[in-house]
Amino acid sequence: MTSPSHPISRYPVPDLAELPEDMRTRILEVQEKAGFVPNVFLALAHRPDEWRAFLAYHDALLLKPGGLSKGEREMIIVATSAANQCLYCVVAHGAILRVYEKAPLLADQIATNYRKADITPRQRAMLDFAMKVCTASHTVEDTDFEALHAHGFTDEDAWDIAAITAFFGLSNRMANVTGMRPNAEFHLLGRVPRAPRPA
Amino acid sequence: MTSPSHPISRYPVPDLAELPEDMRTRILEVQEKAGFVPNVFLALAHRPDEWRAFLAYHDALLLKPGGLSKGEREMIIVATSAANQCLYCVVAHGAILRVYEKAPLLADQIATNYRKADITPRQRAMLDFAMKVCTASHTVEDTDFEALHAHGFTDEDAWDIAAITAFFGLSNRMANVTGMRPNAEFHLLGRVPRAPRPA
Amino acid sequence: MTSPSHPISRYPVPDLAELPEDMRTRILEVQEKAGFVPNVFLALAHRPDEWRAFLAYHDALLLKPGGLSKGEREMIIVATSAANQCLYCVVAHGAILRVYEKAPLLADQIATNYRKADITPRQRAMLDFAMKVCTASHTVEDTDFEALHAHGFTDEDAWDIAAITAFFGLSNRMANVTGMRPNAEFHLLGRVPRAPRPA
Amino acid sequence: MTSPSHPISRYPVPDLAELPEDMRTRILEVQEKAGFVPNVFLALAHRPDEWRAFLAYHDALLLKPGGLSKGEREMIIVATSAANQCLYCVVAHGAILRVYEKAPLLADQIATNYRKADITPRQRAMLDFAMKVCTASHTVEDTDFEALHAHGFTDEDAWDIAAITAFFGLSNRMANVTGMRPNAEFHLLGRVPRAPRPA
Amino acid sequence: MTSPSHPISRYPVPDLAELPEDMRTRILEVQEKAGFVPNVFLALAHRPDEWRAFLAYHDALLLKPGGLSKGEREMIIVATSAANQCLYCVVAHGAILRVYEKAPLLADQIATNYRKADITPRQRAMLDFAMKVCTASHTVEDTDFEALHAHGFTDEDAWDIAAITAFFGLSNRMANVTGMRPNAEFHLLGRVPRAPRPA
Amino acid sequence: MTSPSHPISRYPVPDLAELPEDMRTRILEVQEKAGFVPNVFLALAHRPDEWRAFLAYHDALLLKPGGLSKGEREMIIVATSAANQCLYCVVAHGAILRVYEKAPLLADQIATNYRKADITPRQRAMLDFAMKVCTASHTVEDTDFEALHAHGFTDEDAWDIAAITAFFGLSNRMANVTGMRPNAEFHLLGRVPRAPRPA
Repeated sequence: MTSPSHPISRYPVPDLAELPEDMRTRILEVQEKAGFVPNVFLALAHRPDEWRAFLAYHDALLLKPGGLSKGEREMIIVATSAANQCLYCVVAHGAILRVYEKAPLLADQIATNYRKADITPRQRAMLDFAMKVCTASHTVEDTDFEALHAHGFTDEDAWDIAAITAFFGLSNRMANVTGMRPNAEFHLLGRVPRAPRPA
Repeated sequence: MTSPSHPISRYPVPDLAELPEDMRTRILEVQEKAGFVPNVFLALAHRPDEWRAFLAYHDALLLKPGGLSKGEREMIIVATSAANQCLYCVVAHGAILRVYEKAPLLADQIATNYRKADITPRQRAMLDFAMKVCTASHTVEDTDFEALHAHGFTDEDAWDIAAITAFFGLSNRMANVTGMRPNAEFHLLGRVPRAPRPA
Repeated sequence: MTSPSHPISRYPVPDLAELPEDMRTRILEVQEKAGFVPNVFLALAHRPDEWRAFLAYHDALLLKPGGLSKGEREMIIVATSAANQCLYCVVAHGAILRVYEKAPLLADQIATNYRKADITPRQRAMLDFAMKVCTASHTVEDTDFEALHAHGFTDEDAWDIAAITAFFGLSNRMANVTGMRPNAEFHLLGRVPRAPRPA
Repeated sequence: MTSPSHPISRYPVPDLAELPEDMRTRILEVQEKAGFVPNVFLALAHRPDEWRAFLAYHDALLLKPGGLSKGEREMIIVATSAANQCLYCVVAHGAILRVYEKAPLLADQIATNYRKADITPRQRAMLDFAMKVCTASHTVEDTDFEALHAHGFTDEDAWDIAAITAFFGLSNRMANVTGMRPNAEFHLLGRVPRAPRPA
Repeated sequence: MTSPSHPISRYPVPDLAELPEDMRTRILEVQEKAGFVPNVFLALAHRPDEWRAFLAYHDALLLKPGGLSKGEREMIIVATSAANQCLYCVVAHGAILRVYEKAPLLADQIATNYRKADITPRQRAMLDFAMKVCTASHTVEDTDFEALHAHGFTDEDAWDIAAITAFFGLSNRMANVTGMRPNAEFHLLGRVPRAPRPA
Repeated sequence: MTSPSHPISRYPVPDLAELPEDMRTRILEVQEKAGFVPNVFLALAHRPDEWRAFLAYHDALLLKPGGLSKGEREMIIVATSAANQCLYCVVAHGAILRVYEKAPLLADQIATNYRKADITPRQRAMLDFAMKVCTASHTVEDTDFEALHAHGFTDEDAWDIAAITAFFGLSNRMANVTGMRPNAEFHLLGRVPRAPRPA
């Protein structure tokens, strides 16, 4: 689906067949749900141990229950990835955000300027905190936690916001350095009624 | 098409019927071609004299012949608007760019990080110059013109790049201050084969 | 008046005699009032259609009635031009500001650090808003309008401040890219009692 | 060892006894080698699943063979942590760097300004790349890889540099948000001949 | 000369008569030459010991022989003071620069954007180095000295450029914090043929 | 003590024996107290007049009585020097701070992120003001003085904070440009109980 002139990574990308069983199984599951294999699974598979740790961290943050909805977690990812100018994550997680929130305009809004997005004041406070963690975490102080509390967020929610921001800051940097290319499918996903659901 | 809770501007938006004849005629022409009235025509119509000067400037830069293709001019607009975090212009001109270039992925690429976009080295040099004009025009010097010449651009092309960047810097600031909202149609335009063509 | 080693623009500058009638008429009127032709009229005349749009926009913002005095509009221009490090506009509009306000020190103050200028708290709020539009318009929000209201500015005044800032941001970028040189006369204008009045 | 007025984290810190077996075992191993439990092991243990993923990622990057020495990996960590102003990581990994390199002055040099540090030109190129990944990963391009190749680094080494930088960017943000406090022992470790070796 | 509503400093300003003999003598000498007492002599006299050290440093840098002309030293001061947005120093040293160089336009040029000033390539290299010292001295390296050497500057000249930049960085900060106001006379000095010479 | 491959300055360093009597006397006094000659005394001695002015200024700020303790003055120096990434001053004054405050961890804390340091709210306000003077002195206004007053600081204390910050900004720039190297002794001083006292 990606033309030879547009490799999905600057680094070698393994064939599914070559991968260890646990990796191939996970990737096939994702393909089953999403209808295609998101390129991040293949590009990072160049380093199996890091791939496993990456997905374990990802799952620990995104599959756990907690005070943030799935859509809110994706809002944080899109805002962080836009701040870090990460093409892969803005496009891929923008798609997931549109699907989760059933909001076809929301990802473009948050990626361009989250201050103008159609979100609640609570979500705005969440993204203000995430942006502080993303761009100047050394200035986070008690008053930042108090601002979250004022919107009903707990300290555990604050950890979640910070950890998602920090983890995708790692992801953004790896995608930027490897030149990771988003699957073309993500650009359209969730923009029209009949688009398929992601994993 | 825009719900009452999402006004297209912080300022009063005139009805088409109230507008002077020349403005209404232009707007109806755009509607005829695009299938809808881009919100910028209505939001800026709050100030008719400024609206007329804005469109005269716009037309002087975008309708003239020259060394830059229509698609390249839109690339400059999308890159500038992303740097200025202008939701209206990123979304509306992203749509026009997709249509002109028949490249459904290109606007998302340029809006997120033009360094990773599927563009030619010549277009990359064009956007590097545009970004310098956008963010640090006081540092533009002879070497910047030489870098453009090396890619076959003339001094007149350099003026075009600079003027488009500067004009949309104005547009971005007005859109940001008025809270101008892009038409929902723009988000999807040019992403799928049968989308309508813009004006 | 400008020595050959100091051209007023990197681009060709047309002779008055070559210009279309409407442009020559406007320029001769300015010369009549000011005693000399400000170089911006000649440098931008390289592109007649853009020149006409530029002046139409200029006049729409600076000749209209409104809540901002002529001197206050020039304060915005000087502050914006200093932030964008535009030599032409700092010097030319600094001169006009001195003349309008009969304040020989004011332009130097605003160009260096408007926070230390001899202006009213209302004018300070005006320039704070202008600087936000100039440097980070994507962060303009309701609270910025409220800060202006607290000093008696209306939303229409806010539009005026923003539009003047945005328009001269365009002007600053064109002057920086073309290497536009201010007339020597501007440096002295309004600094001593008998200086001539500008257009 | 930490006084009540100086908690090691803003979040609850579990007792060793409460922790799952795998976590307690690992922590006791570290304590055995280092002579104390580095606070990061306890502070992040508040979230066991994230803790496990964090350590798996850490081990995948720092325990693997590769073109970077153990000391060079710590140089990257100290430089990144200084750029992110992370007290925990600057102090803890500064200590480890001193021990690995048997260079009591090196960590202070790199933490303050790596350009003045007693390192080789190859290590300087390594840290220049790391700092670009840390602060502006969206600008990483082919020329950055070429600069590394010129010093004998392979593309795999580039991945290692980037991944260590990115992973500790995550660690820095979590330490900053949780207010993680370095063990007092780290401040002195490796500064004098008889200091104990870390894990 | 300064109206009561415009104090020359936020701090108490001593009367000449109250000052110790050595300070009064120096100030009267300056007044004799310049025709007025520059406000910096009075504002900083609030702290006699610091005043003496300040002037000793000033004299050591500006009265010594060396590879930089008096005018070039003032160029550095104006560029540095503009970068630090120090009203007092831009206006006062701008005046001295105009007088030394008999160049009525030069100070406005350097204060706004030294890249557009009527200076030699050698002076441009001098100001590029000064600006690096002013804004990012930790990045100064061998290549910066080599760039100066290419224009005929020695290492001693480099020290002079750096020391003048550093000393006026101190002066700028004190003037900004004390709200030091330039004498009105400075604004006009050197702009017209018959203006008096400064000290 | 410094190996030939690590000169203490890019510039020639005079022998003690060659120095004028007053300089040698002062240096020997410092050596007597500290047990070694801090390199700044030798590196700056390359320019005797500047050296004398430098030390006069230093003494005027650091030896005078006033509202700031000796330790607090060193906190300002360490924070300023870290912001300016000056290796010499961070290491040398970090040592002095540890000794004065008998706080072996404090210098590392302030050098990395003063917001996380073990200091009082009053000291935090002091460092916030110092950092504003250090990085954006043109924005200092009445409210900054009021913030200091709220913690019991007088206007004279504000002058002290500003002057120490400004003076060490000068020192930092000279150390960065000359590549001044801290004595190895400073790295360890004050970290263990029996370390010698500095001058």
